[in-house]
Amino acid sequence: MSYKVLVIGGVALGPKAASRCKRLMPEADITLIDENNYISYGGCGLPYYISGEINNLDDLRATPYHTIRDPQFFADMKGVKVKNQTRALAIDRAAKTVLVKNLVTGQQENLPYDKLVLATGAKPRMPPVPGHDLQGVHSVTRMEAAGIIRQACQEGKVEKAVIVGAGFIGLEVAVALADMWGVECSVVEMMPQMLPGVLSANFGKMAEHDFAQHKVALYADEKVLRLEGREGHVCKVITDKRELDAQLVIFAAGFLPNGQLAKEAGLEVAPFGAVVVNEHMQSSDPDIYAGGDCCAIPNLITGKVGYLPLGSLANRQGRIIGTNLAGGDSTFAGYVGTWAVKLFDMSFCGVGLTIERARKEGYDAVSVAVEQLDRAHFYPEKNMMSLELVVEKGTRRVLGMQGACTAGDALKARIDAVAGVLQYSKPTLDDIANLEVAYAPPFASAMDIVNAVANAADNVLAGRFNTATASEFMELWKNRAENKLFFIDARPKAGSKALAEQYPDAWHGISMEEIITGAVEIPEHVDVALICNTGLRSYEAELVLQRKGHTVINSMGGMQAVNKIGGSV
Amino acid sequence: MSYKVLVIGGVALGPKAASRCKRLMPEADITLIDENNYISYGGCGLPYYISGEINNLDDLRATPYHTIRDPQFFADMKGVKVKNQTRALAIDRAAKTVLVKNLVTGQQENLPYDKLVLATGAKPRMPPVPGHDLQGVHSVTRMEAAGIIRQACQEGKVEKAVIVGAGFIGLEVAVALADMWGVECSVVEMMPQMLPGVLSANFGKMAEHDFAQHKVALYADEKVLRLEGREGHVCKVITDKRELDAQLVIFAAGFLPNGQLAKEAGLEVAPFGAVVVNEHMQSSDPDIYAGGDCCAIPNLITGKVGYLPLGSLANRQGRIIGTNLAGGDSTFAGYVGTWAVKLFDMSFCGVGLTIERARKEGYDAVSVAVEQLDRAHFYPEKNMMSLELVVEKGTRRVLGMQGACTAGDALKARIDAVAGVLQYSKPTLDDIANLEVAYAPPFASAMDIVNAVANAADNVLAGRFNTATASEFMELWKNRAENKLFFIDARPKAGSKALAEQYPDAWHGISMEEIITGAVEIPEHVDVALICNTGLRSYEAELVLQRKGHTVINSMGGMQAVNKIGGSV
Repeated sequence: MSYKVLVIGGVALGPKAASRCKRLMPEADITLIDENNYISYGGCGLPYYISGEINNLDDLRATPYHTIRDPQFFADMKGVKVKNQTRALAIDRAAKTVLVKNLVTGQQENLPYDKLVLATGAKPRMPPVPGHDLQGVHSVTRMEAAGIIRQACQEGKVEKAVIVGAGFIGLEVAVALADMWGVECSVVEMMPQMLPGVLSANFGKMAEHDFAQHKVALYADEKVLRLEGREGHVCKVITDKRELDAQLVIFAAGFLPNGQLAKEAGLEVAPFGAVVVNEHMQSSDPDIYAGGDCCAIPNLITGKVGYLPLGSLANRQGRIIGTNLAGGDSTFAGYVGTWAVKLFDMSFCGVGLTIERARKEGYDAVSVAVEQLDRAHFYPEKNMMSLELVVEKGTRRVLGMQGACTAGDALKARIDAVAGVLQYSKPTLDDIANLEVAYAPPFASAMDIVNAVANAADNVLAGRFNTATASEFMELWKNRAENKLFFIDARPKAGSKALAEQYPDAWHGISMEEIITGAVEIPEHVDVALICNTGLRSYEAELVLQRKGHTVINSMGGMQAVNKIGGSV
Repeated sequence: MSYKVLVIGGVALGPKAASRCKRLMPEADITLIDENNYISYGGCGLPYYISGEINNLDDLRATPYHTIRDPQFFADMKGVKVKNQTRALAIDRAAKTVLVKNLVTGQQENLPYDKLVLATGAKPRMPPVPGHDLQGVHSVTRMEAAGIIRQACQEGKVEKAVIVGAGFIGLEVAVALADMWGVECSVVEMMPQMLPGVLSANFGKMAEHDFAQHKVALYADEKVLRLEGREGHVCKVITDKRELDAQLVIFAAGFLPNGQLAKEAGLEVAPFGAVVVNEHMQSSDPDIYAGGDCCAIPNLITGKVGYLPLGSLANRQGRIIGTNLAGGDSTFAGYVGTWAVKLFDMSFCGVGLTIERARKEGYDAVSVAVEQLDRAHFYPEKNMMSLELVVEKGTRRVLGMQGACTAGDALKARIDAVAGVLQYSKPTLDDIANLEVAYAPPFASAMDIVNAVANAADNVLAGRFNTATASEFMELWKNRAENKLFFIDARPKAGSKALAEQYPDAWHGISMEEIITGAVEIPEHVDVALICNTGLRSYEAELVLQRKGHTVINSMGGMQAVNKIGGSV
């Protein structure tokens, strides 16, 4: 009797688990089914096919040697039988069989298993708005849709597009359409900001500004009500605030885990529909494994069950399941939530909780943002980087960090360093202040920005640094008639001159040097709002002003942060 | 009575500790002395001044706002009194004074302290070879020397230079001289490889090849015996193997900690001369702190006392000392040894132990190297990256990782992620296999190279993957008449064709597909040496051949690694 493994789902985790198991246990009899035609493709690459950066759709399902990963490839090279266009209808756990249906012939059969793997993935959340079934309305999870979208662009059929959802895929697709095809794009997002849940409202404005610079509109806090068509093809999107012409509408409003099959088989499923697994990636039935986008996994920061549908997690979990299928003992502890996205000029990257999410989870948290160059300030090539660190107040525990920079790899380096610490310990601020990252002038500052943001947070917690985000600072400036704050621009005169001349009674160009030496008198008893270029000089000035009895509020990241959110005095 | 803090040494740690203390405790009376003229400069930037990438020597001692950090700056802006050109002669711990001498006037005085900070740094190791005091012989730790070297280059006085020592600074200076000024450089190194101690012999060959490509010679395993001069100026370097003409000789043969003052004062000093400190950075006298290049710190990997003179560590330790001087409670646990260096086309970066160092420390360790693209293989911009992971066999504990890539920031991201884990936990292979790094196609592969190298190591420890480094493989090929190995190039025919035609009886182009399907017969009982492009295909082929009873040795990193060491079949 051969050892039978059945895998349902053939995109990322399924093929990985099947191939790994077969490598370790050549005698295993492994079958993989998938209801679609294409299997084993890099779904995360679809926006780059739409943009044209990837020339051929088949590149997404090819090995680095351009061999297409089709059923024949898996049969010949991996020893895995693949039945595509075959849907799993029901699991009979007692008989250990899965009833499947060939979608081409309509034929049904029961496939036996000793071990079953659920790699059923997730489906795009499609709000049931009228018109969602018109032509020209897509999601970007299947290769077929990406092909249709690119062709429509190539043929010049798309002048205007609306993307519903400002998450990773929505933004990547908007960049692809606007940057490469010159399509006039609008992004409609129900939540009040870009990248909700992964970026703070503060840094979300940096992403929004990057889009605005490239003439892509964000309509946040806005809901799509219906789509209108002409001759069966979409032509208009009606939101609760406006009407938008569009020949192409893309829904990228998140994912729903495909846990139905598991649920119907009586397996434990989380309230949001994902299959619950233990650290061996086994469902509540130890003969049934689940992983990837269909399954719930522990969030290592909050300790709660969470969900993170990412191709990278699916691949790593696939290897773990493959090892365990073959009798091994491999475990997956959970996720800390690292991510990266490249927009137009800026890349964004993060790990763990945002400040908003942390507070929602009940943490008494604070976030601190800094602007600093990514390498030694005397090194010729360098980029201004923004990092925001989220910290629990009492314990000083670090809950997350997010960042923005034009240099994506340099940003990734800072985020991944903190991600590594978060994954295997519970770091405090002091641990990040001492984080030992690789240093030489072409790579980092001697006091690197990842240390600097922790140092700044330390100063905030100690009450030495009373902060305003760039947008809070601009809000204070706007309302200066009411709040009566005394605004000081602590940059050298050359930096503050233009604004000080423009607002002679309101914007005071008093340099850090003048504040420290007391060369310029500051009216007694005034409350001060301080800003400089990046926040370094204003911090030194703040200490002096506080000692003189002033209440000070200090702009985090200075004018650099203000510029990145598109603010202007 | 004011609280008196005296700091000896003004380059990196000293000014940091002084400024931090003063910010926290404005009433403190802080004096900093330094025997040199210049203080608070970025010594790590000197090679980039020599190259001309940094235009002005003063940029290295300027704030980001181009204010020069001279004694006046510290007095006015930081509230720290600086006495430069003032040497500390002796510490009187009972009287709590330091005897100092003004090197200009010759005047001596006793400076009192409540707390003393030793930031005395290190001096370049100058082998006492005859001629080391000739003109044109320098080390690159002081601003003055860098100025002289650059000027000599600018004036066209340097045609040939010899650099003694193939560590970080030696290599950075060689790159500066060769790349920017067209100087014909030779590097003489006593140890048998480049970057000894931080790169494996295997990856050291990649650095050597990068140098060879740019016509800089490495003379490894070679010792400088004496320098010869003409009219007081160096003109020749005599080693135990050759004579080299040179108008410029730079000693970059490591550093000796300046622990003499501490030793003479009866403080505990390590056998190699560095001041021993506790986790608060206090010496054996709790009123005397020490940090930076003069002090010994625990190696968190080995648990032994070690030494790592890096500006980044000095800066972080300086803040810790500053906090503690002001009554705080800040600690420094030790170092894992992260580093980065940019050579010509390649950057190198690492953390923890190399395989050679691990074995020397008594670990039963193995190292595994892979070649993989730094981002999704379907993404248009990408770079081949090399990573080598060092693992203890029984415990599966990760002891270090080093890498090489043309994309420095992308490499730093992988190293820093592992550095973060190493610093705050004792990761196993499996932890690195599951390391959750930020993923999107423009940043990483779904199964990123940092996970892949751990997976490869897992396969090695399980006996599924029997490895040879690129140079070991080339050695096997060279000795094929004796070892009788059956060499298989498992790339697709297009890749293996040229070599198979060149060596029809010895180099067998049999693709992975042919091996897996058994389409080409391989003689029974032969032992096989396998290679492909990066190692992926040969791994799959190896599993099949092993099952057929062959003993297989498999080239790690394939032809990519062979090319990077400049090997050719």
